[in-house]
Amino acid sequence: MKGNCIVAQSGGPTAVINASACGVIQEAMRHPAIEGIYGAHNGILGILNERIFDIRKEDPAIVEGLRTTPSAALGSCRYKVKSEADYGKILTVFKKYNIRYFFYIGGNDSQDTADKVNRLALKEGYGIRVIGVPKTIDNDLAYTDHCPGYGSVVKYLATMTLEAGRDTEALYTADTVNVIEAMGRNAGWIAAGTALAKRDEFDAPHIILLPEVPFDPEAFKARLRHFLSKIGYAVVVVSEGTRRADGSYISEQKGEFAKDSFGHTQLGGAANFIKDLIEREVKVKSRFAIPSTMQRNGIHLASLTDSREAYGVGKRAVECAADGVSGKMVALKRLSDSPYRCDYDLVDLSLVANGEKAFPREWISPDGFFVTEAFLRYARPLIQGEVAPVIEDGIPRFSRFKRYFVTV
Amino acid sequence: MKGNCIVAQSGGPTAVINASACGVIQEAMRHPAIEGIYGAHNGILGILNERIFDIRKEDPAIVEGLRTTPSAALGSCRYKVKSEADYGKILTVFKKYNIRYFFYIGGNDSQDTADKVNRLALKEGYGIRVIGVPKTIDNDLAYTDHCPGYGSVVKYLATMTLEAGRDTEALYTADTVNVIEAMGRNAGWIAAGTALAKRDEFDAPHIILLPEVPFDPEAFKARLRHFLSKIGYAVVVVSEGTRRADGSYISEQKGEFAKDSFGHTQLGGAANFIKDLIEREVKVKSRFAIPSTMQRNGIHLASLTDSREAYGVGKRAVECAADGVSGKMVALKRLSDSPYRCDYDLVDLSLVANGEKAFPREWISPDGFFVTEAFLRYARPLIQGEVAPVIEDGIPRFSRFKRYFVTV
Repeated sequence: MKGNCIVAQSGGPTAVINASACGVIQEAMRHPAIEGIYGAHNGILGILNERIFDIRKEDPAIVEGLRTTPSAALGSCRYKVKSEADYGKILTVFKKYNIRYFFYIGGNDSQDTADKVNRLALKEGYGIRVIGVPKTIDNDLAYTDHCPGYGSVVKYLATMTLEAGRDTEALYTADTVNVIEAMGRNAGWIAAGTALAKRDEFDAPHIILLPEVPFDPEAFKARLRHFLSKIGYAVVVVSEGTRRADGSYISEQKGEFAKDSFGHTQLGGAANFIKDLIEREVKVKSRFAIPSTMQRNGIHLASLTDSREAYGVGKRAVECAADGVSGKMVALKRLSDSPYRCDYDLVDLSLVANGEKAFPREWISPDGFFVTEAFLRYARPLIQGEVAPVIEDGIPRFSRFKRYFVTV
Repeated sequence: MKGNCIVAQSGGPTAVINASACGVIQEAMRHPAIEGIYGAHNGILGILNERIFDIRKEDPAIVEGLRTTPSAALGSCRYKVKSEADYGKILTVFKKYNIRYFFYIGGNDSQDTADKVNRLALKEGYGIRVIGVPKTIDNDLAYTDHCPGYGSVVKYLATMTLEAGRDTEALYTADTVNVIEAMGRNAGWIAAGTALAKRDEFDAPHIILLPEVPFDPEAFKARLRHFLSKIGYAVVVVSEGTRRADGSYISEQKGEFAKDSFGHTQLGGAANFIKDLIEREVKVKSRFAIPSTMQRNGIHLASLTDSREAYGVGKRAVECAADGVSGKMVALKRLSDSPYRCDYDLVDLSLVANGEKAFPREWISPDGFFVTEAFLRYARPLIQGEVAPVIEDGIPRFSRFKRYFVTV
């Protein structure tokens, strides 16, 4: 089907979401049926507001540089498409710009949007191929072995945890405990992944607090005291989404901006809460760290495996669309752990949109404060190899689109 | 002078303080007059408590691995030597273990301790050579062009700021401002160094809050609004030691552990304070990040220039001691910026102990919210090149001493 394609990125950026965009763009250039290659500025907002730019006009070196550029070079958004009017507008814009291929790189919400656009187009008889490209550091998408973005956040956060753990190990007579806050919302995937750093009893992390395990202050203090008496210090990784037995978050943001436009509660402050608890009740000095968005943009220590898969799912999305597929997301299907082998798969957008992959109970150690070897076997292949961004004058240099906006 | 040497590390760790220890140890091995090579476990505490281990028994690969191991492998401390009794005890231990060479790697407080030990030994007629080795991420030691540790913290924090800045640039419609808290206590050196990341108007950081500039909320909000109207988002780097015009910190830690054993106020929370201010008064959603000790242990992106100089000051300390020097600290003397050339120097311990190098006023831009080109010319050579730690199975592998403790 001849026509233009548009690619958009949505939700929280990752270190490798641009590798997916690069995969889409470079593959699209190989298909003569795909005429214009457009980027939506800031996800679905760029479509709604007709902020659409012509990627064919960009320097190919800028496109190639996306492989080593963190965050979302097309621009992202957290806009929740809800109304019929919004969906109608999207389709109107697609018709206006003769968009026949729509590649949406994002998480659950984006796959949901893509699904609904696809259904509306079908209903109205507008020929378009809609393919979802998975992206989320949270690794909570259903029907895929893992999500591009996860390997990189875990490789980097595990390394930061290991490095900061050496600080605590050296200074334990002054700073006895360090508490590190991991992202991941309601799933413990990211916090769990920091266990990859630990090779022996001295290495961090020592305790991992997962949202899947209701926070029990007494059990936590007992476990902490175990490490304090055994090695004299401890590093605690706490998921931002850690909850009490009653379901309430141990710490939530308050105030005007406490909920985002999806109605999700903004999390943050779990580390500070745990630090205060330790100082007050265990009576040892603690520090805390909140790497926040740094953890998800660490291209300077991103996983090469992850980056290649991120590129691959983008490329495969275009191949499938060119073959006539629509209404699907490209997923990753693991064939084996060792040697690690992974293939592509296709899954209905509607299934992904409504699914959520919880961290498996059986991968949590019996005491609830660590993960099992089975999890490590799952996660370890995802962090292999290193992306090497260009470093110029001591600092990485990234790509940025010029954004030549088009009008019709 | 024949006898044993001891090396100790003190204060906050850095990414390259182990490179200095490596320089001391490997150079000491070349001098036949130096018999035992000992490490003090946890700085001066290791001497006071006779926790002394034999480095000659360690695998040379562990010693060599120190070059790419962050934090203080000997162990560090924040113990303030104050009493006559403590100094007497140190000298007694030195006599007992026939310590004739003492290399103390640390900041002001450590150089002060080294100075007093040296004077007491002179007074008592005990032959010992005491040499200080500079270390501090804060870069606030006097009489040295810069401190080993500074180049690496700045290279890494600038990169993290640049990367997280891309997140804000992509998601500004949801997360409009990001506030990043930099270490550095009362000096703005580290926060200022993040300016090295900025190559154009879109790159972070946009505003840098320095302890040297009294925080003026109205001027800050005006500057922030300038960026919001110009590019739609902003990244603010705030020094943990930022103060109001009345001298009070914009945020200090409270509670039982609010002061360390030196009586220094524990800082932390400046980023949260600025974030709250922005949301409340500028009415845009903000995030904050507190990389805390992660920033000073980032060996995976440490500066090779810094690492080599850290090794060099350690090595030079031993060479000087072997030549009969005592009571001095090895300093760095810059010969030129471009090409960057730096030589070693010696400075009296007492001068360093009582000096503090403030961030120069003339390197702060007139509006107080950024730094000048002259500062960037000073700092840029210090971040060149990258240390490459061994990465095994996706995660860096570090050295750790076995610590064969000696008894006399």
